[in-house]
Amino acid sequence: MPKIIVLRLGHRKKRDVRATTHCCLAARALGANEIVLSGERDETPLETVRGVTKKWGGSFKARFQPNWLRFLRGFKGTKIHLTMYGLPLQEKISEVRRAGRKKNVLIVIGAEKVPRVVYNESDYNVAVGSQPHSEVAALAIFLHEFFEGRELDKKFGGARITVTPNARGKTVSKKKKTRKPEKRAENRRKTT
Amino acid sequence: MPKIIVLRLGHRKKRDVRATTHCCLAARALGANEIVLSGERDETPLETVRGVTKKWGGSFKARFQPNWLRFLRGFKGTKIHLTMYGLPLQEKISEVRRAGRKKNVLIVIGAEKVPRVVYNESDYNVAVGSQPHSEVAALAIFLHEFFEGRELDKKFGGARITVTPNARGKTVSKKKKTRKPEKRAENRRKTT
Repeated sequence: MPKIIVLRLGHRKKRDVRATTHCCLAARALGANEIVLSGERDETPLETVRGVTKKWGGSFKARFQPNWLRFLRGFKGTKIHLTMYGLPLQEKISEVRRAGRKKNVLIVIGAEKVPRVVYNESDYNVAVGSQPHSEVAALAIFLHEFFEGRELDKKFGGARITVTPNARGKTVSKKKKTRKPEKRAENRRKTT
Repeated sequence: MPKIIVLRLGHRKKRDVRATTHCCLAARALGANEIVLSGERDETPLETVRGVTKKWGGSFKARFQPNWLRFLRGFKGTKIHLTMYGLPLQEKISEVRRAGRKKNVLIVIGAEKVPRVVYNESDYNVAVGSQPHSEVAALAIFLHEFFEGRELDKKFGGARITVTPNARGKTVSKKKKTRKPEKRAENRRKTT
């Protein structure tokens, strides 16, 4: 099955740590398979989303890529750059969805100004509205449209924590950590 | 016509300035009428979105509200708290949409932990997925579903800057600032 990868460009350690963390968490929760971070090297958002994956399940990957341009150029699949200057999402989404059934999809989102080469290297420059707003919001709506809402029902395998929907409170199930078999055997021996 | 207002709870000046700015800009771009900020008093995100409204048009309002609980309790309309612990958006959205045709809608989004009273005071606790992610992403998908995608075609009256969609670059139109009539007359006098 084709993969959905998010490339986050131009991360600035001090200014963008929260926004990039939101990108990572939204990418995971809304059905992407991986996020690739570039700009200033920063483990904080990557570790946050890895921690969430460990607890909340699934197999989401998060990594840093110092050479984003080589990565973008070398990517085999459909490249979609989300930009307020692009063509309307509502006009392009069916085409993009069809492309995504056969090949991997790379969604490129920027922080500050995005270099011209990104517009040229991308197969689609797509606008989630032609107003300035937020790459987190744009990514969220893009994924929601791409998966036609099914991402909200996605099950995350191997979760230690799960939520059961509740009209007026929190229903959370936590699994105990399972110890390794050898450890368990050892432990049994200790207690007998 | 009923109004859509976003209440952003628990803003922390240092930690949340970028995320709250994203909330403000996404709220404006995706069709809300106003954002009300609470938590630590901070003009930065409010000024950013006011500046964007001035340039990019529309009549979006942004203000600080020190007593969020009184505001929440006194709100006349439908109150929707976005929380990963709530009932699935996909199950609740038609009902919420119907309610929003007759009465104003308040969308409540938190930063860190949201006090229990918010769950009780809200008419709906709605989950945009039951996974931890981002209030910016949740707000974006909520508005997108609420407006059924029409928010992406919204026109912003009185804009000084507008974008014309472009497949591979940026097409931006800028209107010159119109001087006040007296000023213009004065100016004419000066030059004659």
